[in-house]
Amino acid sequence: MAEASRTSEARRDAVFGRWVVFSPARSRRPTDLKSHAPANPSPGAGAGAGGAPKPSCPFCLGRESECAPEIFRVPALPDASPWRIRVIENLYPALRRDAEPPAPDGEVGEVMPGERAVVGFGFHDVVIETPRHDVRLWDLDAGGVSDVLLAYARRVRQLMEHPAVKYVQVFKNHGASAGASMAHSHSQMLGTPFVPPSVTTRLNCMKEVFERLGKCSLCEFQSKDIFVSETHNFSAIAPFAASYPFEIWIIPRQHSSYFHEIDKDMALDLGSLLRTMLAKLSKQLNDPPFNFMIHSAPFGVSSSCLPYTHWFLQIVPQLSVIGGFEIGSGCYINPVFPEDAAKILRELDC
Amino acid sequence: MAEASRTSEARRDAVFGRWVVFSPARSRRPTDLKSHAPANPSPGAGAGAGGAPKPSCPFCLGRESECAPEIFRVPALPDASPWRIRVIENLYPALRRDAEPPAPDGEVGEVMPGERAVVGFGFHDVVIETPRHDVRLWDLDAGGVSDVLLAYARRVRQLMEHPAVKYVQVFKNHGASAGASMAHSHSQMLGTPFVPPSVTTRLNCMKEVFERLGKCSLCEFQSKDIFVSETHNFSAIAPFAASYPFEIWIIPRQHSSYFHEIDKDMALDLGSLLRTMLAKLSKQLNDPPFNFMIHSAPFGVSSSCLPYTHWFLQIVPQLSVIGGFEIGSGCYINPVFPEDAAKILRELDC
Ligand SMILES: Nc1ncnc2c1ncn2[C@@H]1O[C@H](COP(=O)(O)OP(=O)(O)O[C@H]2O[C@H](CO)[C@@H](O)[C@H](O)[C@H]2O)[C@@H](O)[C@H]1O
Ligand SMILES: Nc1ncnc2c1ncn2[C@@H]1O[C@H](COP(=O)(O)OP(=O)(O)O[C@H]2O[C@H](CO)[C@@H](O)[C@H](O)[C@H]2O)[C@@H](O)[C@H]1O
Repeated sequence: MAEASRTSEARRDAVFGRWVVFSPARSRRPTDLKSHAPANPSPGAGAGAGGAPKPSCPFCLGRESECAPEIFRVPALPDASPWRIRVIENLYPALRRDAEPPAPDGEVGEVMPGERAVVGFGFHDVVIETPRHDVRLWDLDAGGVSDVLLAYARRVRQLMEHPAVKYVQVFKNHGASAGASMAHSHSQMLGTPFVPPSVTTRLNCMKEVFERLGKCSLCEFQSKDIFVSETHNFSAIAPFAASYPFEIWIIPRQHSSYFHEIDKDMALDLGSLLRTMLAKLSKQLNDPPFNFMIHSAPFGVSSSCLPYTHWFLQIVPQLSVIGGFEIGSGCYINPVFPEDAAKILRELDC
Repeated sequence: MAEASRTSEARRDAVFGRWVVFSPARSRRPTDLKSHAPANPSPGAGAGAGGAPKPSCPFCLGRESECAPEIFRVPALPDASPWRIRVIENLYPALRRDAEPPAPDGEVGEVMPGERAVVGFGFHDVVIETPRHDVRLWDLDAGGVSDVLLAYARRVRQLMEHPAVKYVQVFKNHGASAGASMAHSHSQMLGTPFVPPSVTTRLNCMKEVFERLGKCSLCEFQSKDIFVSETHNFSAIAPFAASYPFEIWIIPRQHSSYFHEIDKDMALDLGSLLRTMLAKLSKQLNDPPFNFMIHSAPFGVSSSCLPYTHWFLQIVPQLSVIGGFEIGSGCYINPVFPEDAAKILRELDC
């Protein structure tokens, strides 16, 4: 790492319009408080030998009745377990599918000027990525990961049919410090009756770049420095203005607005690259807690937006805790330059 | 708490324009991962008897030479320790005061279309709130807390003189899960060469409300339900669309754009209310990790902005970890309705 020779730099990204402060010196600051983030025990730690279900885990094979209703399953290959992937309702949903969908701009109360409230209508689903408690997403082969991605896409297409659903946020939490409450490998999606704030900000920022430069923010990048890996259809990079150390974006090389339009070949390609990147992060950072999020276009945007919306998958290892500066300003401090993270991950064999 | 009778609701606040999903059912979800947030050991835990300095703490009385340079100190009252408060440079600054201030729009590189980078110029200071290792901010009396607030304001006024400083973010981290690396009671401020993203979003949102309703988002609130406590000059509320459980805002009752214009009387009043609120949170939530942030107007905004910018102090206990939904969408899930948090805190004797 060229750490010693580098000084601080502030960078603004062209997708979210966020300022990030890069400061290698920060990583040398001392602490007299115990780090809150213990190495994330592998989910398999509590499982019996041979991947037997953990007695209390409702996501394990054979415990389907302890879960909220199933939406669909991906059947197993011949002579294996009865399913490979299950998409189920979240038993403790943040938004409720049985609530009355909000009328357009239907307000239920206003406390201070300008505030709005709507019933908590929406869809909150869980994707169980494997029947086995001791298998992590990147332990599957590329085909296995691609099946998970295709299950996301299929469910997003179903939710898109509902007129009140404006966006579906697909995400994965791995490890307690990344927010996960369940160890069994899974991801989630939330279909919301509004376009979430970060999505609006992202579209506005990409639009501004497009209008000024005539280019999509994600269609080209000249620098080899931030490049990590690629396949026929996707590139993995450490983004120029990464908010988090070792943050990775996997971007389709062909301009494309909607994740859910991914086809089988694309999914296989993405599955293979996602698997490689998660394996690299796990190896380099000792199985860190992480989140990944899919950033797509909201449903029903006008066709004039499509030239500047380009979907991508963001992977964020959780190596430190954010503090008051980030919460207050929306601006992140990152001790690791993306060029340095990219070099390390690029050279790592996985 | 009326928890059982409530169902999910989505609310949008009138200051940041953020959507928050309130979902009491979420607090009942199980976990098979160890919570990452152990009760936050009181900073005094490691101190010797009688508040003797902790051997390794550079913020303690007598260890001044182990710190980065002092900017100013608040002298002690007669026959007490040589200082009560010290404002010092951060030894591991995110932004550097010795860097070349960026020329307006000076770019140092562009990797993808629309990205920008500037040298990491700025000011990163630490406010040591007490010479004693075992004293927490709310252990001081109202006068002691108000002196800390006046020290913030004085330093902000100094930084405002620098033409390249656009904003100063004042914040405090308490406890490891709130990002703190040092246990000794302190806060920080960062003077940035750009207006941070959340500040821009806040101003835009408050402007939109003002233009539509002719009212400042923070000048009035009708509901007694979210009210917690007040003094002559300030109100403490649980904001209608709180992103975090038990989040508190302390708002000047008279419209005012700039925190740093606070005078001695106002500071005493705020000191007393801040102290009460921190004591209430500590009592109710068992000394939780928390952050507080001061949200003020950027320097040199045009006078037409002043009618809708209203400064306030936000306190955020860190009771859970955010996950991929929040990181991806910018939208928070909060299991505790602010009305319920307000009622509990209002009725708590402190
Ligand atoms: N038997 C069962 N059947 C069906 N579903 C079941 C179930 N038992 C548990 N579940 C659900 O499974 C999900 C597991 O999700 P994760 O472990 O990814 O994190 P969680 O959603 O708890 O919270 C993290 O992610 C969210 C969203 O980012 C953050 O708000 C939060 O702070 C963070 O801890 C939970 O949402 C839970 O409700
Ligand atoms: N001898 C000395 N003299 C002067 N200064 C000294 C010093 N020894 C240490 N310091 C400084 O004291 C500060 C203590 O700050 P905090 O404990 O509030 O959190 P920190 O800034 O480490 O990071 C938290 O807050 C930041 C900003 O929100 C987040 O980026 C980060 O992830 C989170 O952990 C550090 O910034 C450190 O550099």
